[in-house]
Amino acid sequence: MTNLAALTAELPDGTVVTDPDILASYRQDRAFDPDAGTPLAVVRPRRTEEVQTVLRWASANGVPVVPRGQGTGLSGGATAVDGGIVLSTEKMLDITVDPVTRTAVAQPGLLNSEVKKAVAEHGLWYPPDPSSFEICSIGGNIATNAGGLCCVKYGVTTDYVLGLQVVLADGTAVRLGGPRLKDVAGLSLTKLFVGSEGTLGVVTEVTLRLLPPQHTPCTVVASFDSVRSAADAVLAITAKIRPAMLEFMDSVAINAVEDKLKMGLDRGAAAMMVAASDERGANGAEDAEFMATVFTESGATEVFSTADPDEGEAFVAARRFAIPAVEAKGSLLLEDVGVPLSALADLVAGIEKMAADTGLMISVIAHAGDGNTHPLIVYNPADAAETERAQKAFGDIMDLAVGLGGTITGEHGVGRLKKPWLPGYLGPEAMELNRRIKNALDPAGILNPGAIL
Amino acid sequence: MTNLAALTAELPDGTVVTDPDILASYRQDRAFDPDAGTPLAVVRPRRTEEVQTVLRWASANGVPVVPRGQGTGLSGGATAVDGGIVLSTEKMLDITVDPVTRTAVAQPGLLNSEVKKAVAEHGLWYPPDPSSFEICSIGGNIATNAGGLCCVKYGVTTDYVLGLQVVLADGTAVRLGGPRLKDVAGLSLTKLFVGSEGTLGVVTEVTLRLLPPQHTPCTVVASFDSVRSAADAVLAITAKIRPAMLEFMDSVAINAVEDKLKMGLDRGAAAMMVAASDERGANGAEDAEFMATVFTESGATEVFSTADPDEGEAFVAARRFAIPAVEAKGSLLLEDVGVPLSALADLVAGIEKMAADTGLMISVIAHAGDGNTHPLIVYNPADAAETERAQKAFGDIMDLAVGLGGTITGEHGVGRLKKPWLPGYLGPEAMELNRRIKNALDPAGILNPGAIL
Ligand SMILES: Cc1cc2nc3c(=O)[nH]c(=O)nc-3n(C[C@H](O)[C@H](O)[C@H](O)COP(=O)(O)OP(=O)(O)OC[C@H]3O[C@@H](n4cnc5c(N)ncnc54)[C@H](O)[C@@H]3O)c2cc1C
Ligand SMILES: Cc1cc2nc3c(=O)[nH]c(=O)nc-3n(C[C@H](O)[C@H](O)[C@H](O)COP(=O)(O)OP(=O)(O)OC[C@H]3O[C@@H](n4cnc5c(N)ncnc54)[C@H](O)[C@@H]3O)c2cc1C
Repeated sequence: MTNLAALTAELPDGTVVTDPDILASYRQDRAFDPDAGTPLAVVRPRRTEEVQTVLRWASANGVPVVPRGQGTGLSGGATAVDGGIVLSTEKMLDITVDPVTRTAVAQPGLLNSEVKKAVAEHGLWYPPDPSSFEICSIGGNIATNAGGLCCVKYGVTTDYVLGLQVVLADGTAVRLGGPRLKDVAGLSLTKLFVGSEGTLGVVTEVTLRLLPPQHTPCTVVASFDSVRSAADAVLAITAKIRPAMLEFMDSVAINAVEDKLKMGLDRGAAAMMVAASDERGANGAEDAEFMATVFTESGATEVFSTADPDEGEAFVAARRFAIPAVEAKGSLLLEDVGVPLSALADLVAGIEKMAADTGLMISVIAHAGDGNTHPLIVYNPADAAETERAQKAFGDIMDLAVGLGGTITGEHGVGRLKKPWLPGYLGPEAMELNRRIKNALDPAGILNPGAIL
Repeated sequence: MTNLAALTAELPDGTVVTDPDILASYRQDRAFDPDAGTPLAVVRPRRTEEVQTVLRWASANGVPVVPRGQGTGLSGGATAVDGGIVLSTEKMLDITVDPVTRTAVAQPGLLNSEVKKAVAEHGLWYPPDPSSFEICSIGGNIATNAGGLCCVKYGVTTDYVLGLQVVLADGTAVRLGGPRLKDVAGLSLTKLFVGSEGTLGVVTEVTLRLLPPQHTPCTVVASFDSVRSAADAVLAITAKIRPAMLEFMDSVAINAVEDKLKMGLDRGAAAMMVAASDERGANGAEDAEFMATVFTESGATEVFSTADPDEGEAFVAARRFAIPAVEAKGSLLLEDVGVPLSALADLVAGIEKMAADTGLMISVIAHAGDGNTHPLIVYNPADAAETERAQKAFGDIMDLAVGLGGTITGEHGVGRLKKPWLPGYLGPEAMELNRRIKNALDPAGILNPGAIL
């Protein structure tokens, strides 16, 4: 019996998959790493105990394990490694909602949108809303500490994780935290596992904190003839109120979306902001009016407000559609740099200059209220020179952001794609601290080797 | 030259203190551990580099270091150990506020109230508000992940920590995070250090996230003739809205406060709730009305609402005064157990029964909206039998909470006082994980030995 056969025998029928066509579809995530490996097998457990079996086997046999949710990650965190296992959570789909305690206990494979839906049936709300919410798993969200549109007001994934069950490299299952809104017993290990990108353990269950439902938002859309005016508005708004969304698209993104959706966006604008307030009743309208005034005073060429949720959602959908729309122009290198709010305009200006200097199409969309931007570098992979320029720009944008006091990744994670830039950003002391934690929890380096560290 | 003389020589004059009277005043924190040790010296550095010097020296000489803020901790986390150093942050008092980025960079020795004041001068707000905010340090808040009254809506300390500088056991200074609202580069180490109670490193600088100013709250006070009615109201309120405060006092606390403040509290009530909404304009009044209605429908005997901030603050001050007021009745064992919201009534009922069975006076006050309670066990230390009963009750309350799905500590930390109960609560796997992290960062056990682990 080969080693893999031993694992197969220990797990329910059909859990271990070795069909080459299926394996091929698990090699890459949305970073589309051309150097992705080919896994030995894809394993699709249904229960924590089965995940333990996989990791015990992997540790005993020295086989690397790459945890995988829905593979929508943009940093290559779920890229398969040659001869390793891809541990997919796609069959771990249970959820129970406790409306009294306002918590949900979910398995990691559920889509973010399925979690939202399940809790909404109890009149509750799970806020984190990555643009990919209909295609990414809650486990992936936890492993990447995913952000989204409403986190400018409501925070990111970690703010909603009360407890976890994780399986460590050696197969030990550990429960951390639970349905208690406050709990400081022992080190903050729940928080340590959030954002650990599958390098410290496999998340097999999560206890989520839920909120009362969100109020219907009032949406404000504004066009600008300069990026700096839009960035100024961001600062003026966040100094005074807490909008529930404050999103930015540059002219490339506006035009790419308009090409596809033909909804009458201002093709001549240098920038567009989509903002929302979800304050209740008159306050929502008042905040919307405040934002509209700030936009106008900052030099907006056009400002449109609506209290109609469908009309508002159309603009939010347009913003969410920006990545696919720009993707229609060519292959993408998708950036995720973040800067202190005050440096947002300088970052976008620097990227515009880079685009002009290199002749590359670079579109900037941003969760502007958080200072988190997604420069999208468009290139033709068949054009070797352009590809090289695009790859250089990818690194230059990180350098630019770090030079402005920013980070190399605001929400997508380091994965494999950004690993070369992590040491320069964190510095040797923080890198060493990362390594010490990793070694303490996974000394043999079984879990997601090559990601982050 | 003795070893301590070498340290003294390396630091500015007056930094190392060995005067026995002064040493005596640094032996205990507010847990008043009778077995507190006597330190070799108290060291009061002003700069990160000086903290590094202390830890390098301590590591080289195998001398334990107990970090200390203002010593208001209630779990013995800052209790001195014999022959060790107490590293007090009281002279580290710098702060700079960046109103544009809405962040502040503070040294750890500032009081929470001083941080609030410094940022308020820039029209900004630092939310976390432990009842001890005028006497505890921001560094201590970070090390304990302190909660408070407004965290039912605004979250706890960790939610406002964007970055840290920490000095590790070996004297290495590490910068983690910074003034970026979102940053997922590398493991979530900033979050790991928050709540680590001085066992992983000394916090020498913190970057805090700030919010626009809070709106003037509307306050609602209600008296109940049963604890369960009050607990029911908590669930009904938090299911629908997000109050900015939802505090509970039982009849012992009400009477103890009334003895001192003579403000006309209902001495006959079984429970009193102090709630607030800080929503803007009409929404604040609407929320207050909603809470008043819920209180009435849940069986409140008296409900009082006010939009007058001073009048409201008087009731909040009464709630904050509960600990000192009950302390006037005898010595206190101060509990900090938390339960899932749905178990709040059962917890309080269980404690009432315990008080009746043991003849002890036990007062329960609570951050009710978070399920975090502070049972205060009153006893006379001169009465050995009563002291023993009190100590037994202290453990029994934790057992009761854990049996109800709760935690042994919601916000005060494990320190030395609750260490015996941690393994039972966390279980062997999570304990082992705590130990692995501690060993990875402080293999010689220099930092706060005897706390948590
Ligand atoms: C169109 C588009 C828009 C996007 N918008 C956003 C956005 O607004 N905000 C944002 O944050 N992200 C966004 N993303 C990125 C991506 O959707 C998120 O990173 C998401 O959290 C990944 O979830 P997933 O299930 O696809 O995880 P995967 O891609 O499968 O994995 C991501 C990482 O998590 C690890 N992992 C997955 N599941 C587990 C588990 N159970 N235990 C341990 N480790 C695990 C993997 O090893 C990998 O390192 C977007 C992606 C696309 C394609
Ligand atoms: C009347 C009263 C009311 C209280 N109310 C609340 C409340 O509502 N909510 C709440 O959470 N707490 C409350 N507390 C508890 C206490 O005030 C908090 O735990 C506070 O955060 C402690 O701060 P401190 O500066 O006094 O820290 P200390 O007591 O000096 O230390 C506390 C812990 O932090 C460590 N530490 C301190 N500074 C550092 C540093 N710079 N680096 C590393 N480790 C460090 C110490 O080693 C120790 O383990 C209350 C206390 C009192 C007396």
